Amino acid sequence: MKSDLDALMLAQNIDALIVFGAGDHNPAMVYLTGGGHLTNAELVIRRGHKGVLFHGAMEREEAARTGMETRSFSQYPIADYLAEAGGDREKADVLRHKKMYTDAGLSSGRVAIYGMTELGFYYSLLTKLEKEMPGLEIIGYLEEDILLHAMASKSPDEIARIREMGKITTRVVGRTADYMTGHKVKNGMLVKANGDPLTIGEVKGMINLWLAEAGAENPEGTIFAIGRDAGVPHSTGTASDPLRLGQTIVYDIFPCEAQGGYFYDFTRTWCLGYAPDDVLKLYDDVHSVYTQIISELKVGTPFSDYQSRVCDLYEAQGHPTIKTNPATENGYVHSLGHGIGLRVHERPTAGMKSPVLDLLKPGSVITIEPGLYYPEKGMGVRLEDSLVVRNDGQFEILAPYPLDLVLPVKG
Amino acid sequence: MKSDLDALMLAQNIDALIVFGAGDHNPAMVYLTGGGHLTNAELVIRRGHKGVLFHGAMEREEAARTGMETRSFSQYPIADYLAEAGGDREKADVLRHKKMYTDAGLSSGRVAIYGMTELGFYYSLLTKLEKEMPGLEIIGYLEEDILLHAMASKSPDEIARIREMGKITTRVVGRTADYMTGHKVKNGMLVKANGDPLTIGEVKGMINLWLAEAGAENPEGTIFAIGRDAGVPHSTGTASDPLRLGQTIVYDIFPCEAQGGYFYDFTRTWCLGYAPDDVLKLYDDVHSVYTQIISELKVGTPFSDYQSRVCDLYEAQGHPTIKTNPATENGYVHSLGHGIGLRVHERPTAGMKSPVLDLLKPGSVITIEPGLYYPEKGMGVRLEDSLVVRNDGQFEILAPYPLDLVLPVKG
Repeated sequence: MKSDLDALMLAQNIDALIVFGAGDHNPAMVYLTGGGHLTNAELVIRRGHKGVLFHGAMEREEAARTGMETRSFSQYPIADYLAEAGGDREKADVLRHKKMYTDAGLSSGRVAIYGMTELGFYYSLLTKLEKEMPGLEIIGYLEEDILLHAMASKSPDEIARIREMGKITTRVVGRTADYMTGHKVKNGMLVKANGDPLTIGEVKGMINLWLAEAGAENPEGTIFAIGRDAGVPHSTGTASDPLRLGQTIVYDIFPCEAQGGYFYDFTRTWCLGYAPDDVLKLYDDVHSVYTQIISELKVGTPFSDYQSRVCDLYEAQGHPTIKTNPATENGYVHSLGHGIGLRVHERPTAGMKSPVLDLLKPGSVITIEPGLYYPEKGMGVRLEDSLVVRNDGQFEILAPYPLDLVLPVKG
Repeated sequence: MKSDLDALMLAQNIDALIVFGAGDHNPAMVYLTGGGHLTNAELVIRRGHKGVLFHGAMEREEAARTGMETRSFSQYPIADYLAEAGGDREKADVLRHKKMYTDAGLSSGRVAIYGMTELGFYYSLLTKLEKEMPGLEIIGYLEEDILLHAMASKSPDEIARIREMGKITTRVVGRTADYMTGHKVKNGMLVKANGDPLTIGEVKGMINLWLAEAGAENPEGTIFAIGRDAGVPHSTGTASDPLRLGQTIVYDIFPCEAQGGYFYDFTRTWCLGYAPDDVLKLYDDVHSVYTQIISELKVGTPFSDYQSRVCDLYEAQGHPTIKTNPATENGYVHSLGHGIGLRVHERPTAGMKSPVLDLLKPGSVITIEPGLYYPEKGMGVRLEDSLVVRNDGQFEILAPYPLDLVLPVKG
């Protein structure tokens, strides 16, 4: 949690954090400032001190709303430094930042850098700033990353926000089912009033509309994939595809709060009208593993234990998995789940080869999403819910929704 | 344009570009690949060669759709490099990238880096890769940036896409006007059927809904600010504010295509019911400067000439400007405009202190947005349209819309 920051910095011998980039759609900045419409900002947080937020002059009111100490970039006019730098713009920016950071009380020490931003400019700035300020050591990578570690345990407020996104998500999923099953069937496909087939693209359009209506954003799009596409885990689906009965539809939806806030992550697999025997068998295999894994989750255990476990369960059912064949594109081919928060994918991580061993702890918010894929057979099944580890050690699905495979349609 | 890339690279003595990050909401990657749902990718383009796209194994089909040569990260299992790196994860990633880039034909030369991505990880990777591959020189900053320069001239296809976003934008603006003026007035405010005041937040919710309905995204939000907020150029507005008659409403809307494609940028200033004399005077001053500047635009001239010119025009009207007082927060306080494309703000730039001198050329797509602000008087006015410089040298507003100040309301 955010309150752990000073301790995490101390443990890693880090004297300050600097976060670069916009106030929105920028997880580190949103986490530390609460977000805001800042086009471009820099946040300097020294260990044990309040943050200093540098911001564009026109965005002073948005900056002030963060409650941080604020300084406008206009207090550091580039023209002043261009003269000193002999007209060299890159050098002038380095001198300007030296002054800014010194004013923020930071002139030496080990500094961890963060931010979702344009790589080139800051790469240049920071490599040259390190030379200009010999006491400053810029740290890009920490095996045990401070912010990712802090973010891995959610506060009650963060959990409430993710749960609310879960409620919005499941309401939209319910509307999607109602919308599709409200259509008639012709030649084994859903059709509109004019007789034309309803398409994947049209359903996705409605999903975006309902999310917007609920005030949510969908920055990474929705996976709504049928048939062979459903057998390719991260194929997002083909817009022109019709909705045929008896084919698997993988519906993976991961919207977030407006301006790049907290995400939810959810998947169901549907068959319109009926499920052929091989699909039913595949669904039953996934469903039983999903249920089994959720029943086995225990607080204090490594998330990756369950990745290994789910592979064993699938192998026992006769499916290939990445545990025995890392290159397989059939069977179980991805990770069991991941933390969610201001990113769709964050810690804890279930990967068996992750650089860090992540435990499931109170405050962890994770997805559980076992799936099986057979692209050549034109089918895939995935079931996914997001769960919180409560303080009492129980795992709770944040927004429950029926797991049913078959959506009945009108003859 | 994209076809200028090789020449631009040669002129700057750059042997290759590497772009990092997602396939969407990442201007450099969208520009060079056409976009796609790639969680994390790396694109290596050597001068005179086709690009090589490294992608996650599960996203192979999305990657293939770009038409580039593709290679899965799974061909470079981190475990192989961890052994060589003695278990050091950071070192292993460096060795892995050395192999990847060498396989892509890149083992030495001057390499410009791009991408909207997490700064820390790549900062670390690239500083260390430069040491591991002594023939490689990583260039973060170029005074005349290759991609920004290429992007500054739009192709007919890009112009058509921006124009289409303009049409969507002005349709939404029209719906916003109709929606507001469809409300009744009570106590000098717009009220809903139940008598409660209509709020800024509610109008913004409708704007997002209409944008989603049109298939657009609104990643940076909308400025819809009334009264004093309208006097602070980049205040986005206060959600709980009621819509009072006779106050300036600055409505600045800048949506983009789904998945982070091309933007449009547009502003109108409205007064509900009537405009008080001081508002009318302020509007007339902005309107006359807006009209004057648009009539003066000439192909082949520096964009910044018009920034200087607009300051002179406003000074002649008696308003303070940043030309004579860079710190002013009253009068004319920002830039006349900017290029638009895959970013809301890109080249050409009108700033008088820009590191590059940008000419208005055929294919330039720019905003013209003169404004005047008096926060202490509770008012601000800005008018903005996006224009293309056509091959015949004419400046054309991409999506015309009435400039009217007063929106009549129902008594």
